[in-house]
Amino acid sequence: MSTSQQHARRGPSRGTAARQASLREHNLSLVLGHVLDADGPVSRADLAAATGLTRATVSALVDLLVESRVLAEGDPVQTGSAGRPAVPLTPARGTLAGLGLEVNVDYLGVRAVDLAGDVLESVVVPGDHHASDPAVVLADLTAHAEAVVGRLEARGIDVIGAILALPGLVDPSADRLRLAPNLGWADVDLSALREVAPFDRLGLTVTNEANLAAVAEWRARSRHLQSFLYVSGEVGIGGALLHDNAVFGGVRGWSGELGHTTVEPDGPECACGARGCLEAYAGKDALMVAAGLDRLGPVADLRARADDGDTAALAALARAGWALGVALANFVNLTDVAHVVLGGVYGPLEPYLRAHVTAELDARVLTAPRSDLVVEPSVAGDEAAMTGGAVEVLRGLIANPSSRLPS
Amino acid sequence: MSTSQQHARRGPSRGTAARQASLREHNLSLVLGHVLDADGPVSRADLAAATGLTRATVSALVDLLVESRVLAEGDPVQTGSAGRPAVPLTPARGTLAGLGLEVNVDYLGVRAVDLAGDVLESVVVPGDHHASDPAVVLADLTAHAEAVVGRLEARGIDVIGAILALPGLVDPSADRLRLAPNLGWADVDLSALREVAPFDRLGLTVTNEANLAAVAEWRARSRHLQSFLYVSGEVGIGGALLHDNAVFGGVRGWSGELGHTTVEPDGPECACGARGCLEAYAGKDALMVAAGLDRLGPVADLRARADDGDTAALAALARAGWALGVALANFVNLTDVAHVVLGGVYGPLEPYLRAHVTAELDARVLTAPRSDLVVEPSVAGDEAAMTGGAVEVLRGLIANPSSRLPS
Repeated sequence: MSTSQQHARRGPSRGTAARQASLREHNLSLVLGHVLDADGPVSRADLAAATGLTRATVSALVDLLVESRVLAEGDPVQTGSAGRPAVPLTPARGTLAGLGLEVNVDYLGVRAVDLAGDVLESVVVPGDHHASDPAVVLADLTAHAEAVVGRLEARGIDVIGAILALPGLVDPSADRLRLAPNLGWADVDLSALREVAPFDRLGLTVTNEANLAAVAEWRARSRHLQSFLYVSGEVGIGGALLHDNAVFGGVRGWSGELGHTTVEPDGPECACGARGCLEAYAGKDALMVAAGLDRLGPVADLRARADDGDTAALAALARAGWALGVALANFVNLTDVAHVVLGGVYGPLEPYLRAHVTAELDARVLTAPRSDLVVEPSVAGDEAAMTGGAVEVLRGLIANPSSRLPS
Repeated sequence: MSTSQQHARRGPSRGTAARQASLREHNLSLVLGHVLDADGPVSRADLAAATGLTRATVSALVDLLVESRVLAEGDPVQTGSAGRPAVPLTPARGTLAGLGLEVNVDYLGVRAVDLAGDVLESVVVPGDHHASDPAVVLADLTAHAEAVVGRLEARGIDVIGAILALPGLVDPSADRLRLAPNLGWADVDLSALREVAPFDRLGLTVTNEANLAAVAEWRARSRHLQSFLYVSGEVGIGGALLHDNAVFGGVRGWSGELGHTTVEPDGPECACGARGCLEAYAGKDALMVAAGLDRLGPVADLRARADDGDTAALAALARAGWALGVALANFVNLTDVAHVVLGGVYGPLEPYLRAHVTAELDARVLTAPRSDLVVEPSVAGDEAAMTGGAVEVLRGLIANPSSRLPS
């Protein structure tokens, strides 16, 4: 996600054709990255100033990207007293789509997003995937994906790739889900999924859901929040540390397992087998059950009970907020993150969690009296991991823009 | 600490003198970095192969670095059947020194290390700095530093810089120690320290002690362990995550406050004011007191009691190991680090801590059955932060080699 720090060389290259192609790819990447990450329309002159490329080079590259339906040109605008009117360039709307897919414990879904950030299709199917059969659930997901892709293609939209979010430890190198405790999945081989439609054509990458939700949050905040902790509150609780505009994955990409950090060493048993994990206090199942509600019901039921002043609901939220505060204080003490975003079910529940969370942060974070630690609800919307997967697919264009160019 | 990924351009530069100087600096940095980070002697031919520079360029740069006493030449060695014998190049021994200083709760000290890694001087003064006066302690430290520098200079050794390790939150931008709970120091202005000898000549950088100890550990392991958590067990307990050969500092450099993560939310009170912090179970003070020993005594006393089978000592170590295991499990779950190094007083105590630590890690780390999590004692030696400070001073040469060249 980090934008390139390199600057293109000015002037013509005297290398071979291969080197020229590589230089063009680099410059296309620079130009595309600037337009995709801009806060509004940019002109060719803006791009020349930002990239250090000549206006002629920028114009040629922009023409290619417009022709490839990656960028769109708006109506010319007279910006100064002299010179030609500037043509505003924006990411194209409704031309290319990235596909974000997700299997979580109580739903699965498929979402398509275009370069302008518009959601073109979104299918969310509630279900109970506790202790489920991966083959059955993934076949269901694949059928929904195939239907979504078919509808998009019928509208003339190119789907350029797909990313699947899973609530657990993903091992991309081994093409496996290592463990998703709440799904009851362990050592699931994901390679076969790439051999069935639509993934045989689109390709498929599998990633941890909290990491993708953090990407969606970063996008929803116009890329201005460069370091934050995203907390994905679902049946499981994931965390993703976005640091300097990139997800901090750790050695094998298994970082952020906030839900399995310990609140009380002798606390309630967790699905993972340990005692006192945060999930056992503040996961969606734990919250719903503690409030006397059906654990598979919508979190809106819990919010409604709390709004009505229901004692059990408020007590469940107070306990979850306290536990979340203890766990978040550990995270902040260890990583020095200054901004915490509460996502997933914590978005709608945040008003009832906040005071309990901040009380623990104030008491336990060593830097608390000295820093402005911000805790706030997510703005990325529901099923943020699906959105984040689609966004990541589209951002892949920045690294490899010529994949979309006419050959 | 990360070595440069850039490759120098081949052939002569046709730019201005300023650009040529900058290119020479870049190439010097490449060459010096390769020699300092090599596992053994390297030849000019090795350097040419490694950097992509011509042999003539490498030879000119090496000559400068030898003349400046940064590199040393050994006796020529005939490596093949043809060609001139290769001259082995190594970091110079006993010519330049970095100064590492430390104030900790029960000692202060000054250590000088040369480019070969040899300790040229080491002064460690036990003391009780609980609730101490920063002005008094820092004056004492300064006097020791001035004496050490004087002795080194009398031996013809150039001291090229100094770094001070403090057990707390350091704010380099504001030139302040924000907080060191066990020293009882808060908001200490450090700028005046730079105006007194020897720091008026040497300069002085202030850094968190665990971060510097991690650098010493990385150096002691010949830079082969690229990602690990260093645990600095002193009166306070610091942690430093070294990831991809660089310390992960967080947003403001205040990461790694392992000692103030929560083991039990209602546990014993900590010096920071919170309850149940790891330090209250496993800090040196807590350990000594729980074992019935003088908290200011040497940790060797505790080790001796444990070796004798003393019940109180073994119980204190078991409790500390359990608490450390709970806290480390949280760290591993959040950061996906695969290697934990136990430093400070945990080095000699490790045989009595290990089983208790690993029992909690096995039970609580989500990836535990799937990964080879290594826990082992530090090899960086005592007062590793002092060594790390000196090493960091010397590594500064890689970024700025011409500071040592004859002008």
